Amino acid sequence: MNQYRLLIDCPDQPGLVYQVSRALFKGGFNVLSNHEFVDAATGHFFMRTEFSGPGDAQAILRALRERLASATLRLSAVERRPVVLLATKEPHCLGDLLLRHAGDELPAEIRAVVSNHAALGPLVEKFGIPFHHVPHDEVSREAHEAAVADAVSPYDPAYLVLAKYMRVLSPGFVERYPQRIINIHHSFLPAFMGARPYHQAHERGVKVIGATAHFVTDELDTGPIICQDVLPIDHSYTTAAMVQAGKDVEKFVLARALRLVLEERVFVHGNRTIVFG
Amino acid sequence: MNQYRLLIDCPDQPGLVYQVSRALFKGGFNVLSNHEFVDAATGHFFMRTEFSGPGDAQAILRALRERLASATLRLSAVERRPVVLLATKEPHCLGDLLLRHAGDELPAEIRAVVSNHAALGPLVEKFGIPFHHVPHDEVSREAHEAAVADAVSPYDPAYLVLAKYMRVLSPGFVERYPQRIINIHHSFLPAFMGARPYHQAHERGVKVIGATAHFVTDELDTGPIICQDVLPIDHSYTTAAMVQAGKDVEKFVLARALRLVLEERVFVHGNRTIVFG
Amino acid sequence: MNQYRLLIDCPDQPGLVYQVSRALFKGGFNVLSNHEFVDAATGHFFMRTEFSGPGDAQAILRALRERLASATLRLSAVERRPVVLLATKEPHCLGDLLLRHAGDELPAEIRAVVSNHAALGPLVEKFGIPFHHVPHDEVSREAHEAAVADAVSPYDPAYLVLAKYMRVLSPGFVERYPQRIINIHHSFLPAFMGARPYHQAHERGVKVIGATAHFVTDELDTGPIICQDVLPIDHSYTTAAMVQAGKDVEKFVLARALRLVLEERVFVHGNRTIVFG
Amino acid sequence: MNQYRLLIDCPDQPGLVYQVSRALFKGGFNVLSNHEFVDAATGHFFMRTEFSGPGDAQAILRALRERLASATLRLSAVERRPVVLLATKEPHCLGDLLLRHAGDELPAEIRAVVSNHAALGPLVEKFGIPFHHVPHDEVSREAHEAAVADAVSPYDPAYLVLAKYMRVLSPGFVERYPQRIINIHHSFLPAFMGARPYHQAHERGVKVIGATAHFVTDELDTGPIICQDVLPIDHSYTTAAMVQAGKDVEKFVLARALRLVLEERVFVHGNRTIVFG
Repeated sequence: MNQYRLLIDCPDQPGLVYQVSRALFKGGFNVLSNHEFVDAATGHFFMRTEFSGPGDAQAILRALRERLASATLRLSAVERRPVVLLATKEPHCLGDLLLRHAGDELPAEIRAVVSNHAALGPLVEKFGIPFHHVPHDEVSREAHEAAVADAVSPYDPAYLVLAKYMRVLSPGFVERYPQRIINIHHSFLPAFMGARPYHQAHERGVKVIGATAHFVTDELDTGPIICQDVLPIDHSYTTAAMVQAGKDVEKFVLARALRLVLEERVFVHGNRTIVFG
Repeated sequence: MNQYRLLIDCPDQPGLVYQVSRALFKGGFNVLSNHEFVDAATGHFFMRTEFSGPGDAQAILRALRERLASATLRLSAVERRPVVLLATKEPHCLGDLLLRHAGDELPAEIRAVVSNHAALGPLVEKFGIPFHHVPHDEVSREAHEAAVADAVSPYDPAYLVLAKYMRVLSPGFVERYPQRIINIHHSFLPAFMGARPYHQAHERGVKVIGATAHFVTDELDTGPIICQDVLPIDHSYTTAAMVQAGKDVEKFVLARALRLVLEERVFVHGNRTIVFG
Repeated sequence: MNQYRLLIDCPDQPGLVYQVSRALFKGGFNVLSNHEFVDAATGHFFMRTEFSGPGDAQAILRALRERLASATLRLSAVERRPVVLLATKEPHCLGDLLLRHAGDELPAEIRAVVSNHAALGPLVEKFGIPFHHVPHDEVSREAHEAAVADAVSPYDPAYLVLAKYMRVLSPGFVERYPQRIINIHHSFLPAFMGARPYHQAHERGVKVIGATAHFVTDELDTGPIICQDVLPIDHSYTTAAMVQAGKDVEKFVLARALRLVLEERVFVHGNRTIVFG
Repeated sequence: MNQYRLLIDCPDQPGLVYQVSRALFKGGFNVLSNHEFVDAATGHFFMRTEFSGPGDAQAILRALRERLASATLRLSAVERRPVVLLATKEPHCLGDLLLRHAGDELPAEIRAVVSNHAALGPLVEKFGIPFHHVPHDEVSREAHEAAVADAVSPYDPAYLVLAKYMRVLSPGFVERYPQRIINIHHSFLPAFMGARPYHQAHERGVKVIGATAHFVTDELDTGPIICQDVLPIDHSYTTAAMVQAGKDVEKFVLARALRLVLEERVFVHGNRTIVFG
């Protein structure tokens, strides 16, 4: 039996759930789960529905498109999504995703890893995934990014995951993958934006460290937040110990965010996300 | 504008959301929020909808009763619920609820406090709430409970909250308030059921302590869990320090559970709860 | 038997623990607990020792002062500390501290509450604590602060607690109580410094909210952090719901920080704290 | 410069810290960190000190042995410890440890993996670690365990880690590695001891799931707890989703416990642990 997800968002108006549920009912589909949310501040409506049945899902989509002219509608079959990972030198997030992939924990097909350093090649190759080393030295930023794009593009990824990729992507690159690039930032954003957040955190003497997974936008470290978590620390943590603790929370947060995105539980609305967890 | 909540649960079948959303739409109501859940294991459907409008909400209820014969349906106006608190000697949970009540943090009207000890009288009286001391010494368990029931009954509470009430209620008492008595247990149930859980926890050397808010049923400490939370501890915690830390998590968990119940976000299904948080 | 605390901090050098433990041993004291820490980055040593015995504790202090000329040494008897609370209009932190005080949960004697509004007077009076309303309208900032100082001063507090006191204190006021004024900030600092942090947090779409207890210094919201904690939230939290959730974490964090300070577990070193929890 | 750890535990008596700190000072050693704890209930003293210097550390040990006849004393150089992992079929904990080992996150040398199933062989071989498949079918429990012991023994491990090893070890096996076998249990012990804890947890409707790392003793799931942590869940978690969430908390807790043990931060006292984190 085919299984689908329908995502709708539009300005709120009476009867939206009725319209959608009627279309599915009349189309002979069985609703497996429903999530709805109306953002009171902006009056915007969000709905995610999972349904199954032998009927014509595209016909549902067409019918709703007609009736709900102002809505953004997305229909997709429930299936594994192609993903490409970008990384630099740190193995913890990358390795964790490769391990989860190998253990079939993620509804993803990791098609390749692209890195500006060679260091992670052996790790990636252990898992039988293609590894592309695209060095950034002695080339311009533009040329490097073009080479990264060329390495990524043939794999046709639904999502790019920056698993500790330590280069800033240009607006031109980002707009190719709107709301489809996920980054893990090593702090509880918006605290400690920019470089060396653990050094900043150590200096400030914080008692909790965090990590933030977010969509990448044009502006550094300010894209819509998907998922955050923290770990308690104390004065005895050196910067190195904070980095080590940070790795644990980073890999947990990135994996959780990726799962939420792969299961299409995340809407972006302005600079915020609606996450039907 | 009147505001309502409709709670439905029944065996799952196609078109349930459609039926409800149609009835509300046709009745001229505006849906403020919707939550649905289908328990895959038992095939049971749960829905909570908040809606507003000038229409006839009772007519909606009657119509749905007819169409959904197998469903349990509850309709109520969104309003403050009457509550009676039971307590014994410990002030932390009781005081926290009285404080929240005074600060208008809870959609409740605390009508009275009933206690088997006199100790908490002065605290309760500070807040101008009637306090009933129903001593348990030199009376039988049955006679004491009957006296408690007599003290509670005139206040006609929607919910009873056991804010560290250290007496076990009989099945006869409990069945008067089905799914309407909320208890706070000072451990992460089902660990450390029964008496002196912190002593048990200290002896076992656990690294985390918790608290559990649950509905009271016939059987001790096994009713449906509404809310749980924990705090990390370490070897340096004496039993007394664990008790102190426990108070913080107890009062937080009880207040959260009470809010969820007062906002009618909690369904009981067998021995489990569905909580639309 | 008298019980004492000795706090020492100085540049690290060999034999510090030896010197202190020898002095206590020769003086006939029994060590109840010891905490030491050397900050590797600055080479600074911190020690807190609790001990008891019939001997002459002041003699120990004098001897160590002679031997450890570069050290900051503090000796005190273990006893309840006088505290004055400052508040404005919000009752949750203030009420929680009054409740803990009434329930004998804190090693403090709350001597008075001073507020720039009259609103909290009735709450404070329930607990039999003197309440001073020092209005800030129609007087200059300087005159108001002088009046606050006059209200506080007769109570000779060891610590001032800003339990949601919404006025900024001048450097002149702060320097009267160095490292003795504790504030609760309604965010996970350094995120969302300044005004209306929950509005900022809502706009940024964070998935976790926090609270920070810190010592007050000349500069707004940047004093040494004593304690932080967080609660998970999601997109469904309005600003009002975030404020409500924030209250729970604020009161928990402030109470915890106050306990740590009252038990003299907190050293300030530059802008960081060492907390022997 | 050589670096050492000295661990002492004995019945408390005056002057213990003095004796130890004097011996180190006189021996020309520099104390890097000190932790002490006196368990008030049993009057037992625990101390862990890290120190460095060119002196004769064994002489310190001998001197303290003489002076503190009743103490258990352990001296060791700070160095990587040999470890053997036991596993069955689940890759998440095993893979996480192998990944951390490859990324040099743990002060361990993982020398081999022994499993009663062949399934994890390919994963282990990716990391270039010897893998021993010791099948348990068609042999007696005793014969199987003897074969496991034979596989483990040549690697001379300081610690055995049961990374989801699903067989119960006999008392005879356990006593070969006293306080040196670490297990990860997939629940917040003592809740849900025994088999299928997630099924038990689902049935009980808990709102939090946890994991417990503990030393293995003769009795199933009751050994001294090293580390515990939890994750919040809700009614929407199927047993499968709980298992998935559980994997995240299991691997985090096991890795943390192993680090604490490898850094010799854990004392066992009766059935409790003292963890100098």
